[in-house]
Amino acid sequence: MKFLNENFLLTRSETARELYAKIRDLPIIDYHCHLDPAAIAQNARFRSITELWLGGDHYKWRLMRHAGIAESHITGDACDHEKFAAFCATIEDLIGNPVYHWAHLELKQYFGFDGVISSENAAEIYAMCNSQIERDDFNVHELLKKARVEWLATTDDPADSLKHHKKIAADNTPGVPKVLPTFRPGGALEIEKEGFASYVKRLGDAAGININDWDGLLAALASRMDFFVDTGCKISDHSLEPPVFDPDATDDNAAAVVKKALSGERLSAGEIIVYKTRLLSWLGGEYHKRDWVMQLHMGVQRNNNSRMLRLAGADTGFDCMSDANFSLALARILDDMESRDALPRTILYALNPTVDDMLATMIGNFAGRGIRGRMQWGSAWWFNDNKSGMTKHLLTLANHGIVANFIGMLTDSRSFLSFPRHEYFRRILAAQLGEWVDNGEFPRDMNRLGKIAENIAYFNVKNYF
Amino acid sequence: MKFLNENFLLTRSETARELYAKIRDLPIIDYHCHLDPAAIAQNARFRSITELWLGGDHYKWRLMRHAGIAESHITGDACDHEKFAAFCATIEDLIGNPVYHWAHLELKQYFGFDGVISSENAAEIYAMCNSQIERDDFNVHELLKKARVEWLATTDDPADSLKHHKKIAADNTPGVPKVLPTFRPGGALEIEKEGFASYVKRLGDAAGININDWDGLLAALASRMDFFVDTGCKISDHSLEPPVFDPDATDDNAAAVVKKALSGERLSAGEIIVYKTRLLSWLGGEYHKRDWVMQLHMGVQRNNNSRMLRLAGADTGFDCMSDANFSLALARILDDMESRDALPRTILYALNPTVDDMLATMIGNFAGRGIRGRMQWGSAWWFNDNKSGMTKHLLTLANHGIVANFIGMLTDSRSFLSFPRHEYFRRILAAQLGEWVDNGEFPRDMNRLGKIAENIAYFNVKNYF
Amino acid sequence: MKFLNENFLLTRSETARELYAKIRDLPIIDYHCHLDPAAIAQNARFRSITELWLGGDHYKWRLMRHAGIAESHITGDACDHEKFAAFCATIEDLIGNPVYHWAHLELKQYFGFDGVISSENAAEIYAMCNSQIERDDFNVHELLKKARVEWLATTDDPADSLKHHKKIAADNTPGVPKVLPTFRPGGALEIEKEGFASYVKRLGDAAGININDWDGLLAALASRMDFFVDTGCKISDHSLEPPVFDPDATDDNAAAVVKKALSGERLSAGEIIVYKTRLLSWLGGEYHKRDWVMQLHMGVQRNNNSRMLRLAGADTGFDCMSDANFSLALARILDDMESRDALPRTILYALNPTVDDMLATMIGNFAGRGIRGRMQWGSAWWFNDNKSGMTKHLLTLANHGIVANFIGMLTDSRSFLSFPRHEYFRRILAAQLGEWVDNGEFPRDMNRLGKIAENIAYFNVKNYF
Repeated sequence: MKFLNENFLLTRSETARELYAKIRDLPIIDYHCHLDPAAIAQNARFRSITELWLGGDHYKWRLMRHAGIAESHITGDACDHEKFAAFCATIEDLIGNPVYHWAHLELKQYFGFDGVISSENAAEIYAMCNSQIERDDFNVHELLKKARVEWLATTDDPADSLKHHKKIAADNTPGVPKVLPTFRPGGALEIEKEGFASYVKRLGDAAGININDWDGLLAALASRMDFFVDTGCKISDHSLEPPVFDPDATDDNAAAVVKKALSGERLSAGEIIVYKTRLLSWLGGEYHKRDWVMQLHMGVQRNNNSRMLRLAGADTGFDCMSDANFSLALARILDDMESRDALPRTILYALNPTVDDMLATMIGNFAGRGIRGRMQWGSAWWFNDNKSGMTKHLLTLANHGIVANFIGMLTDSRSFLSFPRHEYFRRILAAQLGEWVDNGEFPRDMNRLGKIAENIAYFNVKNYF
Repeated sequence: MKFLNENFLLTRSETARELYAKIRDLPIIDYHCHLDPAAIAQNARFRSITELWLGGDHYKWRLMRHAGIAESHITGDACDHEKFAAFCATIEDLIGNPVYHWAHLELKQYFGFDGVISSENAAEIYAMCNSQIERDDFNVHELLKKARVEWLATTDDPADSLKHHKKIAADNTPGVPKVLPTFRPGGALEIEKEGFASYVKRLGDAAGININDWDGLLAALASRMDFFVDTGCKISDHSLEPPVFDPDATDDNAAAVVKKALSGERLSAGEIIVYKTRLLSWLGGEYHKRDWVMQLHMGVQRNNNSRMLRLAGADTGFDCMSDANFSLALARILDDMESRDALPRTILYALNPTVDDMLATMIGNFAGRGIRGRMQWGSAWWFNDNKSGMTKHLLTLANHGIVANFIGMLTDSRSFLSFPRHEYFRRILAAQLGEWVDNGEFPRDMNRLGKIAENIAYFNVKNYF
Repeated sequence: MKFLNENFLLTRSETARELYAKIRDLPIIDYHCHLDPAAIAQNARFRSITELWLGGDHYKWRLMRHAGIAESHITGDACDHEKFAAFCATIEDLIGNPVYHWAHLELKQYFGFDGVISSENAAEIYAMCNSQIERDDFNVHELLKKARVEWLATTDDPADSLKHHKKIAADNTPGVPKVLPTFRPGGALEIEKEGFASYVKRLGDAAGININDWDGLLAALASRMDFFVDTGCKISDHSLEPPVFDPDATDDNAAAVVKKALSGERLSAGEIIVYKTRLLSWLGGEYHKRDWVMQLHMGVQRNNNSRMLRLAGADTGFDCMSDANFSLALARILDDMESRDALPRTILYALNPTVDDMLATMIGNFAGRGIRGRMQWGSAWWFNDNKSGMTKHLLTLANHGIVANFIGMLTDSRSFLSFPRHEYFRRILAAQLGEWVDNGEFPRDMNRLGKIAENIAYFNVKNYF
């Protein structure tokens, strides 16, 4: 039995198929992911399809847990073949789940497999993939070339040496994409976390500054931003859980909070908000000065299972959506920057689709200043990275703004096999454009439609950064 | 290239087309809008298509900002032709946005234009429209007649003299619709706003009462309600951002808060809630006595961009949805009225569709007393006034109540060209009714279906007010 | 005019029709309902179709109120024929409402009526149904047999004697389903309610324990759980409005709160949370020991109309959805159990579909331990028990987990005629599976698809309990 042909998700519309043909082969710019720069710098190879396909992929792990697979066969010490078989048993039933599609797209694009994954052919697929993985030319660079990645942006700590990024930049091998760092100063913002003082020490060491106070902290962060610029950085990243705002957050107030935190005193909820308000607003201004893009992620509730956090660590599949409210705090912190002419171009992301319409209208509050697509509502992401989630994102964005300005898809992934999600997105995009046209909601002007599709798939993001 | 024909949004269902034919030519009752009564009283004319079509239309302005148009060409001092061209450049890309449809419906219905608006034909459209606008018979009255408006309700301050409404009422020109005022006492409720004391002064002046306390305030409001009744008022309007409720809000407590506010003292959050609870509940009782309908709007977060509020003023496109919770407070304030036999017929509106299902079930809590459609969940509104928003509204209303009781569409608009939104709604309504029938979810009894369609499009609202 | 044929909701997909044929005749396990065990034990008969069909059915009552029917004809003292006629007049207009479908399915399945219910044939239907009801073999047992109910679970107070359940268990009449009790200790948890002390007295009497303190309370509850086990109980049920959590809720703290409550002192909000946290967490552990399933219902806001609560009592149609947030508290209370190895298999239900995606990801946080389908996100329920609600539930569950593990439908009903909701669900399930296949999102492997459909319709729930 075969699965996935050229018309996957496009069977219902000739318009959609024509539009997909225009964007299928465009390069990929993956402006937000969590790939390991060391693996790219070293052009890593892989032990087996299990390591490559299932190692670190918490999307697949969650489903295996739902299916009743023992943890030994997920993150534990079962052998590669057993883990692979356990996932193939899991996937059989995954009707309606995006991992069913991703997994098939991944094996198709990278290994030429166009059948249906199941327990029956698990051993055969395992052997077939591993025989390819053993070949000398099966390595990270080839995987990135195969996916036509033009550039990608990893997610990095301000204290990071960026040595891997520098090594990649110095490597002139044709076809290897540019790899840019992203400045993610979560450690500096999360003053309520236990490791704050030691993080500040680490940050100071990286900047060559002995951080004793607010001014020292800002100086170190600014210094690291300049260092990141030198390695090509254009983007920052923040997870706000949730956004907070205090209108009285001055530098002096924030300085007092830092002093208290560094001396080991316990902070009140209000003090934490003062600090986060002022630091994020200051950071926004610094991004604006450097013409960086600011990314704000919202709607996540992390590490909900403390037993598994202890056993398997963070980012292993125990996060969920948060239903916390934040429209007022978010508007106020953005307004705080905008009213000081310090708001950078910004991408807002939600994990909980409940806030989709709200965010799609929030970006309208700060659109303008003559900059096309200045404010973006980012791609349907993580749990929403599925057909209905992406379709709803496109539809909601179109309802409240200009979907043709959208900078499109990102993988947000830790896996070198995850680029077919761009194919998935492009098919869903073409299907939605076709739906609007076929239903008489937009003229069938294939030139204009082609331009819209190409912009969303590639040119908008190329021009945005 | 042409766009929009008789089957716009109806191509997929013969049932839908038959039902639309039954409601297409029914009159329009626009029971909630923000049209300027002065312009109607004076039978205003227009300088250009730019003034008529783009002046004051913040829906279009927001999109122009997203498109990167400079503010000079939106609310600034660029000339009419430049602004028009800027909007035509913006609209080209608006796939999936309701303004794409509204704008085309507007030019079609009022100017007979059935092409596709774009940069290429912007100059031609501009000249064509302006040549019609220059004709002697192109004025507000003709626009309202063309749209078959039977009556409309503006939104008015209790302190307003209603002189324009009186002038319109005295004008017996055939075809000019009735124009009713709506009583919107936001200024009296918003005790936390800086201008409260001066508003109260203005209200007292209008009523001929020197307001020094709670009793004086109520007397003045009651007097103004009676005055509004004399000019045909049947409707009140409130924007609750969000609803609040304090079970201990007595007249005495509210009186103490007013006293404090009028003497310039700062109020606590709790005091503000006491005041708003008691005043809204009292107002509800007064509306009930007069058999008025009470409108409560929720889910808005206004004036999020303080820089643009300073530069361009309020209602210029910098509002968004709020995600604040309010189901408990809303139920309690309605119950407070209902338990005193003082709850008027009420329409609840949400800007944030997140609360759609909640509101659709909230109206069930207070349905009854033998009054058909006593409680209404109002039309998909503002940001939701699009195909998916209106379809979701109809579907959700049908799931939780009786969509056949729905009083239907309103424009909520400041523009004399916005009545085609009723056509838009009627098409979407017919399409949804057709979908239910074609999918076998309701018998294909065209008599009953026609009655349901006609009721939602016209007769329910006619009978409700 | 006829309505409802074999292809109801299945007209658009041959795949769907084939799948429905596989699950149509499977038995029903109704693991959550509010049927009266006394009526089953006594094999009750009915006075008229009005008593059977409209008595106690607040779904239908709400719609009658929306339609403007006087309360006398809903819960008042109009005669059976008048009430029946009033409902038939109401239903005529119910396009898009699930009650339109349920009511027709009910009359079809139990009375063989396949026409369209309306005012015109109300008298005829009334007579036809009553003539069947008068027959000797028209009783509760026959209704349950006709619906192929294998077993059902009622909802019961821990203090209940379960005498009806025992009588049913002792009755060996063939075809009468098993009737299991469900342990619903709401009275013990709701310490803030006025009747708490007297409830505790009643609970102690049932357990033969004089409850004076926390330890006595736990002992009595444990004793009642053991008693429920003896009568076949496997399930507990909780309505959390909303979930709460205090990390410092120890036994000692909870004991102090109970002491205060039993001595008639007023509790603070914080004390109530401490008590509820600790008691629910302890209960979870007890359920886990007994291998029971824990059900947690969320998102309800009850008794919103105090006038009708006084006039007609609770559960008469004056509840709605709540928009309160609870993702953090819910995760913390579940984690509290899980980290003590005390989390039972759990079903989470939401009344407000706003939290659908959040809950669908919440169950992923606690999936695992090698148990297939350990955590369930329960069926679209009460207000969501309609085509779009159930379809959204299936789609959302599939997006974030394994829909093939889903334990499927329940009636949550007080009516012996409500089992056709399982038919409604099975049709919607088949339609959704068909949609995925027809759109090329899953291979058309009818063996696997049949197994998935059968598991969701029957075998998953059979194996889960």
